[in-house]
Amino acid sequence: MISERRLMDAFARMRELSGQGEGPGVYRLAFTDADWQARGYLTGLMREVGLAVREDAFGNIVGRWEGTEPSLPAVMFGSHADSVPNGGNYDGVLGILAAIETVRSLKEEGFCPEHSLEVALFMCEESSRFGAATLGSRAMLGELSAEDAKRLTDKEGLTLYEALKKRGLRPDDLGKPLYEGKVKAFFEVHIEQGKVLEHEKKTVGIVTGIAAPTRFRVKLTGSADHSGATPMALRHDAACAAAEIVLAAERLAKAEQEPPAVATVGVLEIAPGVMNVIPGDAELGVDIRSIDAATKKRVAEALSAAVSEICKRRGIAFELAPISDERPVAIRPSVLDFLEGICRGDGCSYMRLPSGAGHDAMHWAERVPTGMLFIPCRGGVSHNPNEYAAPEDIVHVTRLLEKAVREASKKSVRFV
Amino acid sequence: MISERRLMDAFARMRELSGQGEGPGVYRLAFTDADWQARGYLTGLMREVGLAVREDAFGNIVGRWEGTEPSLPAVMFGSHADSVPNGGNYDGVLGILAAIETVRSLKEEGFCPEHSLEVALFMCEESSRFGAATLGSRAMLGELSAEDAKRLTDKEGLTLYEALKKRGLRPDDLGKPLYEGKVKAFFEVHIEQGKVLEHEKKTVGIVTGIAAPTRFRVKLTGSADHSGATPMALRHDAACAAAEIVLAAERLAKAEQEPPAVATVGVLEIAPGVMNVIPGDAELGVDIRSIDAATKKRVAEALSAAVSEICKRRGIAFELAPISDERPVAIRPSVLDFLEGICRGDGCSYMRLPSGAGHDAMHWAERVPTGMLFIPCRGGVSHNPNEYAAPEDIVHVTRLLEKAVREASKKSVRFV
Repeated sequence: MISERRLMDAFARMRELSGQGEGPGVYRLAFTDADWQARGYLTGLMREVGLAVREDAFGNIVGRWEGTEPSLPAVMFGSHADSVPNGGNYDGVLGILAAIETVRSLKEEGFCPEHSLEVALFMCEESSRFGAATLGSRAMLGELSAEDAKRLTDKEGLTLYEALKKRGLRPDDLGKPLYEGKVKAFFEVHIEQGKVLEHEKKTVGIVTGIAAPTRFRVKLTGSADHSGATPMALRHDAACAAAEIVLAAERLAKAEQEPPAVATVGVLEIAPGVMNVIPGDAELGVDIRSIDAATKKRVAEALSAAVSEICKRRGIAFELAPISDERPVAIRPSVLDFLEGICRGDGCSYMRLPSGAGHDAMHWAERVPTGMLFIPCRGGVSHNPNEYAAPEDIVHVTRLLEKAVREASKKSVRFV
Repeated sequence: MISERRLMDAFARMRELSGQGEGPGVYRLAFTDADWQARGYLTGLMREVGLAVREDAFGNIVGRWEGTEPSLPAVMFGSHADSVPNGGNYDGVLGILAAIETVRSLKEEGFCPEHSLEVALFMCEESSRFGAATLGSRAMLGELSAEDAKRLTDKEGLTLYEALKKRGLRPDDLGKPLYEGKVKAFFEVHIEQGKVLEHEKKTVGIVTGIAAPTRFRVKLTGSADHSGATPMALRHDAACAAAEIVLAAERLAKAEQEPPAVATVGVLEIAPGVMNVIPGDAELGVDIRSIDAATKKRVAEALSAAVSEICKRRGIAFELAPISDERPVAIRPSVLDFLEGICRGDGCSYMRLPSGAGHDAMHWAERVPTGMLFIPCRGGVSHNPNEYAAPEDIVHVTRLLEKAVREASKKSVRFV
């Protein structure tokens, strides 16, 4: 039986493995010491519940429970454990702890799956360190090359390639799929990271699609002249151009209503950054999302055009460099119906909703039947020390995951 | 006679004492090793030309040439030698090297001043390190207290008080005037740091007034939510509010035509500064200037009102903290006429013009007859590695300074 105490103990232990930063939150950035300690703890839990643990060249962990028919494709479920800087202890953590508790509970009752069960811990889901998200699942599926790993760097200039080497991993093996098995279905539970469930007073959300990000960097080069002696009309102020781009991103995303889009300038740096010099350089990092690919493309293209127009008008040189362009994915109707059946059987209050955030699940959703369940997080707050999910919701969604895994592991249950 | 070779040798030596940074320019930030080495070199030059050198509690240097009537007020001239990060080697440096060369030339010809002559090297003129400008001249005139020095910090959090202590100076003596003599007149030569002289094809500018800055910091606190899962309508994005403030500052300054104003957001920092989190915090440093106090006040008040409106509309908390509010000063007509007489006698092409930048001279201008001469700098570029002034203009303005000092040192010449 799903145990609240075991789950809460594990959350508390993860909170201890949070690393250190300026704020009070979690600093478990990918491949840092805190992340590596948490990975060690979770791997230990997987072994404790009887899973056969293996590691791939990127450091992703898969814990396998061999089914009675080992040649059948596996039912996989899990999530990530890395965090943003000064983040919360539920994003990702919920999914991996719910997965491990599900196995423990099924083992306790003496359940024998026909399809094998696999718990996956994906590395480097957050883009905070290397500027691109879900790198572990991409590596697992052969969508991340050694060259990509050499190109991606953190704020200190360390490449992902070097970070992997430092952890004794094998970045030169990237490029081909690191996961060699077959998957029948993939499930991930996660906090919503938004306010919809709370607002609609629902305990659980069945995700209908995942709005993966399109990201790019904009570098602006103006002229770093004296802030007192340069008349307004003779300026090429990179900060003013950057400000117009920030507001253009906001305006263009707001203009998309159905389906909606969001755009965020989360990175904005100006130089030289002193009071008496007009900013000569600026750099922006832009993140655009929608569950509809055409909508997202329209916002990205309009923003590129706006950057060009703003810079031309202001006499500012610019470079626009793509970072990532993920495809948003829809969840298959057969999986939606399967999860809805489980929720209806449980008698809980649920709803269907899109995911604004990207998740490891989106890479699986393109290949195999995939489902995601959300629970509310207080105030919709995530990526923030105040991130919080209620224990009763955590226990409840773990029970739903257990039911889904139990059903999906049966030969008789098929997804189309 | 003013020597081009000696002047150019001294500029070359100052270029060698530039410190190190990421860019190719000068990094002689106040009280750093590079600044201290340059100060040592300049003090040596002053001694070499026969000046009696003294240092005050803030580190300002005054080199005195006792006149034939020592009890009369001194004629003071000089400038500063510190720089912005990645700055040029003419801003400030011109004024102190022209002053020393003037003394050397007058000594060579056996001139005997009636009023004493004093060459002043002011510390910490640039605001780059401690966020406030002309601190040395303020300290000299008793307008900077030990409490002020404890409040002002650099980017590493070191206070000005501590920086002074580290250099063996006496910040506890601040508050009372450190300069105890009397001044008959103060002169400073400087590069224009603008494009007006170049555009008007004039060799020298007689400064009519100095547009001292009003500066404040704005701290914005929004909500650091997930960039994918937070709909546009539910955001409190501190970067978007900051962007509106940057553009409001630009718009309000542009609206002032006669007299003109300038406004610059030279400091703009957002946090947490990653792609997948909406910026929850932002900090801006605003610098507003005009040679007219009422114009400057109008821009500052309108910008405060704009900050308040923007933040209220966006649900963002803000703090607005003044950093400095200098009075713009006018140059006395008697000094303008005196300098114009010297230019006319020289036969050079000159014009009167306001100074957009603040200078040490502005603090003297409030107390004693004060004059400033500008020379063109190429493209108006200053606070930048490409800052450049032509040797012929440097030699020429030094000759004008020599004439001005020679005349002003006569008992028969009086200013009203």
